[in-house]
Amino acid sequence: MYIGIDLGGTNIAAGLVDETGKIVYSKSTPTLSARGYKDVIADINKLVKELIKESNVNREDVKAIGIGIPGLADKDGNVIFCVNLGWENIPLRKMMEDELNIPVFIDNDATVAGLAEYEFGAMKGSKNGILLTLGTGIGGGIVLNGEVYSGAHGVGSEIGHMIIGENFYNCNCGKNGCFETFASSTAIIKYAQKLIKEGNTDTKILEKVNGDIEKINAKVIFDSAKEGDKVAKMAVDRLVKYLVIGIFNIVNFMDPEVIALGGGVSNAGEYLLNLVKEEFEKNKYYKTLPAAKIVLAEYKNDAGIIGAAMLGKHGVA
Amino acid sequence: MYIGIDLGGTNIAAGLVDETGKIVYSKSTPTLSARGYKDVIADINKLVKELIKESNVNREDVKAIGIGIPGLADKDGNVIFCVNLGWENIPLRKMMEDELNIPVFIDNDATVAGLAEYEFGAMKGSKNGILLTLGTGIGGGIVLNGEVYSGAHGVGSEIGHMIIGENFYNCNCGKNGCFETFASSTAIIKYAQKLIKEGNTDTKILEKVNGDIEKINAKVIFDSAKEGDKVAKMAVDRLVKYLVIGIFNIVNFMDPEVIALGGGVSNAGEYLLNLVKEEFEKNKYYKTLPAAKIVLAEYKNDAGIIGAAMLGKHGVA
Repeated sequence: MYIGIDLGGTNIAAGLVDETGKIVYSKSTPTLSARGYKDVIADINKLVKELIKESNVNREDVKAIGIGIPGLADKDGNVIFCVNLGWENIPLRKMMEDELNIPVFIDNDATVAGLAEYEFGAMKGSKNGILLTLGTGIGGGIVLNGEVYSGAHGVGSEIGHMIIGENFYNCNCGKNGCFETFASSTAIIKYAQKLIKEGNTDTKILEKVNGDIEKINAKVIFDSAKEGDKVAKMAVDRLVKYLVIGIFNIVNFMDPEVIALGGGVSNAGEYLLNLVKEEFEKNKYYKTLPAAKIVLAEYKNDAGIIGAAMLGKHGVA
Repeated sequence: MYIGIDLGGTNIAAGLVDETGKIVYSKSTPTLSARGYKDVIADINKLVKELIKESNVNREDVKAIGIGIPGLADKDGNVIFCVNLGWENIPLRKMMEDELNIPVFIDNDATVAGLAEYEFGAMKGSKNGILLTLGTGIGGGIVLNGEVYSGAHGVGSEIGHMIIGENFYNCNCGKNGCFETFASSTAIIKYAQKLIKEGNTDTKILEKVNGDIEKINAKVIFDSAKEGDKVAKMAVDRLVKYLVIGIFNIVNFMDPEVIALGGGVSNAGEYLLNLVKEEFEKNKYYKTLPAAKIVLAEYKNDAGIIGAAMLGKHGVA
């Protein structure tokens, strides 16, 4: 048995996970990050203890704890950055191991979700693969030969900040042209808002949000596009074009066996997947050679817990 | 002992290489690719036999032959493409092993050069690294944990076709915005020619080529920039800007320990390296974290032979 923890900006979700990736018991608590890291980590430790107690598992049967964080950790288990939580240089592993006496392993949340897809989901059976989490930003989880790949300094798979063009707005990171400014939910919302502000007001998008463009979300845009709305289709086409440029760059660089699309944008499902595959086939460099399969991620919210548990499993293996 | 072969569009260079990466004997012959692959491969086999005979090495002491090709090979040793040689689906390994009875290993020439830098050159002592060959195009040689990385379908490390912006001319591959249209020798030449055609004629570049813009090469531009020429400096600055965007994308994705700059453009030496490092420091995402070291490749022409020999060494290891 392993414990997987998904540390998010809103909630801390923890689960007891068996060897087959099944969550046998789970529990969560609000993060309340404004309290500071000491209280948050105390709550993580409390959650682990409750999980063990309430699930009636023997403590010695819990081989490891994995934790996915919305940031970066170094190889010694220190959190280098967690911007959303306001954490910097926090000895998370030590503060958990000292209290719990179970080995703790830490990695980025997208990386951990990639591991869940690799072990039991959309990348199962592949030698290597990449999960793209298309949410408010874009994260990447790279799995090579069965192990998560985090790079030489723990800062790899920051795929969202790969520069792929020139855009009408700058990224949060200060640069222009980042992948996530073209192909995240934030990106498609901003572009739809731009189109509407430029006068394209005859659109179902506006109907669905009662004329309030601040209420536009990715689902509204994809739903409108599926219904044949022209403005929505322009926004979707642009997202697809740049998503495929990003995929194309990944393929030209790493040539993975499979690329899985996850995160909120991937809720557009087969509709999005088919557009992406079509655009990819049109654009791939070696037309006659096999290239990465593009698939939808299989897990939604559970990827964080399951992947973190597997990080623990790999860690003590 | 290993034999390394650098199969180029103009020459076939072969060398007998010892365990320490030293070329103890070498020999070359013109490729004359117009003859067709059978004659070229017959000449490769002849070259290997002559190399063994003339160097007085025992045939059984040659453990393997490695060959770097300007194209792609599959895992069974078939050349999938070699555009410059006009080769497609050529059973190179079989045609060599049948004749020579020594194991043969084949990979892309930039990949093989990366292996030479990894074993004995600029990436020595690193766990992973990437060689960028900045020539008429841009090639990439990725080494991960001591092994060359070619991807799941043998088409990885095509870094030159990573899309990083919008450019004033299209790439040979048909796309716009490929890395190699911004940061190769071809790229800087085209941009300098563009500047001159647009009226920037007060430049040392033109003096050095006696007014014939067709004679401009990368060296002329870098030499002029070093002498303080403004037009040349504009061309160099643009190359550096986009080279760093490409490096930045590689760092955000793979986070390698070291990135080595090779190929003709890297002959600009420390002058180029310092500009690149300065631009990289200004632009890196995690300002306070260590990131890839950027260095000049150490080998010039010998990387092909030495790297190929090491490919053979790894192959039979």
